[in-house]
Amino acid sequence: MTDAPFGAPIDLNADLGEGFGHWRLTDDEALLSVVTSANVACGFHAGDPSTMRRVCDLAAERGVRVGAQVSYRDLAGFGRRAMDVPARELADEIAYQIGALEVFARSAGIRVRYVKPHGALYNRCVHDAEQAAAVVEGVRLAGGEAALPVLGLPGSRLHEAAGAAGLPVVAEAFADRAYTAEGTLVPRREPGAVVTDSGAVVKRSLMIARDRAVTSIDGQRVEVTARSLCLHGDTPGAVGLARRVRNELQASGVRVEAFT
Amino acid sequence: MTDAPFGAPIDLNADLGEGFGHWRLTDDEALLSVVTSANVACGFHAGDPSTMRRVCDLAAERGVRVGAQVSYRDLAGFGRRAMDVPARELADEIAYQIGALEVFARSAGIRVRYVKPHGALYNRCVHDAEQAAAVVEGVRLAGGEAALPVLGLPGSRLHEAAGAAGLPVVAEAFADRAYTAEGTLVPRREPGAVVTDSGAVVKRSLMIARDRAVTSIDGQRVEVTARSLCLHGDTPGAVGLARRVRNELQASGVRVEAFT
Amino acid sequence: MTDAPFGAPIDLNADLGEGFGHWRLTDDEALLSVVTSANVACGFHAGDPSTMRRVCDLAAERGVRVGAQVSYRDLAGFGRRAMDVPARELADEIAYQIGALEVFARSAGIRVRYVKPHGALYNRCVHDAEQAAAVVEGVRLAGGEAALPVLGLPGSRLHEAAGAAGLPVVAEAFADRAYTAEGTLVPRREPGAVVTDSGAVVKRSLMIARDRAVTSIDGQRVEVTARSLCLHGDTPGAVGLARRVRNELQASGVRVEAFT
Amino acid sequence: MTDAPFGAPIDLNADLGEGFGHWRLTDDEALLSVVTSANVACGFHAGDPSTMRRVCDLAAERGVRVGAQVSYRDLAGFGRRAMDVPARELADEIAYQIGALEVFARSAGIRVRYVKPHGALYNRCVHDAEQAAAVVEGVRLAGGEAALPVLGLPGSRLHEAAGAAGLPVVAEAFADRAYTAEGTLVPRREPGAVVTDSGAVVKRSLMIARDRAVTSIDGQRVEVTARSLCLHGDTPGAVGLARRVRNELQASGVRVEAFT
Repeated sequence: MTDAPFGAPIDLNADLGEGFGHWRLTDDEALLSVVTSANVACGFHAGDPSTMRRVCDLAAERGVRVGAQVSYRDLAGFGRRAMDVPARELADEIAYQIGALEVFARSAGIRVRYVKPHGALYNRCVHDAEQAAAVVEGVRLAGGEAALPVLGLPGSRLHEAAGAAGLPVVAEAFADRAYTAEGTLVPRREPGAVVTDSGAVVKRSLMIARDRAVTSIDGQRVEVTARSLCLHGDTPGAVGLARRVRNELQASGVRVEAFT
Repeated sequence: MTDAPFGAPIDLNADLGEGFGHWRLTDDEALLSVVTSANVACGFHAGDPSTMRRVCDLAAERGVRVGAQVSYRDLAGFGRRAMDVPARELADEIAYQIGALEVFARSAGIRVRYVKPHGALYNRCVHDAEQAAAVVEGVRLAGGEAALPVLGLPGSRLHEAAGAAGLPVVAEAFADRAYTAEGTLVPRREPGAVVTDSGAVVKRSLMIARDRAVTSIDGQRVEVTARSLCLHGDTPGAVGLARRVRNELQASGVRVEAFT
Repeated sequence: MTDAPFGAPIDLNADLGEGFGHWRLTDDEALLSVVTSANVACGFHAGDPSTMRRVCDLAAERGVRVGAQVSYRDLAGFGRRAMDVPARELADEIAYQIGALEVFARSAGIRVRYVKPHGALYNRCVHDAEQAAAVVEGVRLAGGEAALPVLGLPGSRLHEAAGAAGLPVVAEAFADRAYTAEGTLVPRREPGAVVTDSGAVVKRSLMIARDRAVTSIDGQRVEVTARSLCLHGDTPGAVGLARRVRNELQASGVRVEAFT
Repeated sequence: MTDAPFGAPIDLNADLGEGFGHWRLTDDEALLSVVTSANVACGFHAGDPSTMRRVCDLAAERGVRVGAQVSYRDLAGFGRRAMDVPARELADEIAYQIGALEVFARSAGIRVRYVKPHGALYNRCVHDAEQAAAVVEGVRLAGGEAALPVLGLPGSRLHEAAGAAGLPVVAEAFADRAYTAEGTLVPRREPGAVVTDSGAVVKRSLMIARDRAVTSIDGQRVEVTARSLCLHGDTPGAVGLARRVRNELQASGVRVEAFT
């Protein structure tokens, strides 16, 4: 362990504002004391206007960056059901969500700094070039000259489409997901896909942040490109674990710092 | 009648983009060749993202100003059912809608130039000071330094609240609604509240635009403050009448011109 | 304490199934071990189809009666925002909700046994004769020959309308709400409207169930008509209190028994 | 051509009640004078409660059978966007819709007589055994002892699943869709998939109804199993064509008769 930061910094991102109206899900207050980038739900899978405003206000106070966590229009399914949305429609739905969030960011004195798809849209944009291109078109449409970065998996169709459109991409990694020897995520339906042991999650976080590598599900060392680490915060335990990850990173001399 | 324009100009505004998904209502293409200001539905009572984009693109092409037609969240009731929305929530819902529209305006190379409440919210904000103040707070929140004008009835709580908040107000009049001798609208539930004869509507439009006056339901001349005339376009016949109003105004030497 | 029940029995009702999709609110499992009547959310303010089915299945297992907890169409506001829904529309919306629940009751081998309006609709139907009549018309429409009872406040417009339509009415009381000397609820906005001390709630429950009376906010004994006691279960503490109320009622010899 | 009916009768079905709130789409009044079976939208892709009631009332008057036209929950996409809804959730969503319609059928003195999936769900259930089974489970759940028939394409996974669950199946054919030599529909994206010439549609209707056959896109005679013919009614021209089909069928001696 060293006292001084070394190597490249790491960003910590998590989903916030994922309640809707009377329903609450994420502990936004607590998460905003842990993460450096807040993926704010924009009303399509979760996120009512008042929650969006409150999260932006608090993020501004704490110096946390906000990004638009865009989704399929699916409150009933929390955006976890893949949908065959035509490309033009999808691009416009993405732009709509970013615009809505922009208002609350601006009123808080900040800006929307990046975009990250949620749930089924995130998963679909790993492999589906058409939907990935539609999401990027929506980001481009909404961002204007801002050229908002797209946060996602390295090697995904989403990052390819963003790159092709001249948008910056930011790679993220998951400390609580198993990786194959090829460096891709083990699908959730397979055994061992999710790392549940908190000690292991902390250890993997350190390995990703310091070495840009993880141990694959079959025991090999795999390089992982990651400027950001995705944390989960939809359970009380998850928030505690997220805080522990942050503390251990900092104790190990890793600079925890937003990517923008 | 004179050939040259004289007196103050008049703006023509109408509601546009009031379909949703597969459903269509307003003939946006036709209306955009008539009006100078388009009140664009923002998704809460009508208006899907793709329609919003198309209307903004076409409005930009034709030099028509766009405004955010904000509403209660009520697709099933088309925003025509008054709702007791708490002030803070309402303000945030208004801001959300304006922000969403702003994206499509900006991508079309224009800006959202004003805000007008729709349906039950419009009616409520005539008399209800709390909801009027909430709408104005939403406009202020979304507008930032832009100080968006609020289009509405002169003397309404909405205009009072906008004035108190330092926002510009724009007064509108209705050629197809009866007025009382005091210059207020005859409530819709009363007989004669709506002027259905198209010749009468044209004549009243001219009187409002040239003389800033109408004949009240009991036959008196009443002064009417109006920088804009609200036209309706949700039926094919209405579009034809709107066009006729515009033609007659111009033939009478009235300048038809947006207020911003 | 006596061993044998005496006097009239009391029903315990609470709102259940008030999550939506990924969001949870009520602890349905725990509440179904306390109440004798479950007010099941039907999808308009809360309550997705799968939750409705699970609640009905569990209620059937435990011998708990299910009723349709009908609401304005307002997921974003949890049905707590009063809406001016036209009577015909409201009646049809009520019938729709009851029908949807009936399917899950029937598949569980039971039936929908009563109807209770939720939130803002409940409050509105205390005073608003038109909306009360619309709700009753919806109940009548959906119930067919079943003549479903309407659960609500004695003296409300809702009970008047139900009585006029030949539907049975069931009166409920609230142990955690203050009453005026006239026997009406103290409005929530007034100080002392909600009884927060759990000991007091238990004591008042006993007084309502055994004596059909409460102590009013100004210290008088007021008679209260109640065949059912409404409990709240949207917080963990509330469930514990509800269980304690049930236990104390039974320990005091009060028969806790559904009204149908 | 003969005067007397001969051979097996044919049912005519069409989608009805596909407006939502203020928006109208189908000319329900006109269609109910043409079809023998009305596929009534149940609120998930279209169809508000009041429209459902009106269609049921009118169908009862005219002796038209009503069926539940069930859909993915997707008002914004009119149910035309395929969704990966988990099987249990989908079954419950289907049951919910059927129950809601049942109320209005019952209040009109009739019953829901069959179920037909709409749009993307219909298309998906041709090939997707899991979703087909989920739809059938929803029908079974809602139907109770009624064992509601499932209307759809012969050979579809939907019909297989219905058969396996002991539900009756009713086969339908499309006079305005091209068929392959194998008797399956030519996918919409391929050229010639939709038959737009009204004379050809009438001729194909007769061939389907009288001969249970069509001419395939490559000119061969193909047998088609069909107890019902699906007509479209979402444009004024379509209603006229539907009426002409009915008239020609009857003039040719085909009995036009509901399947239940």
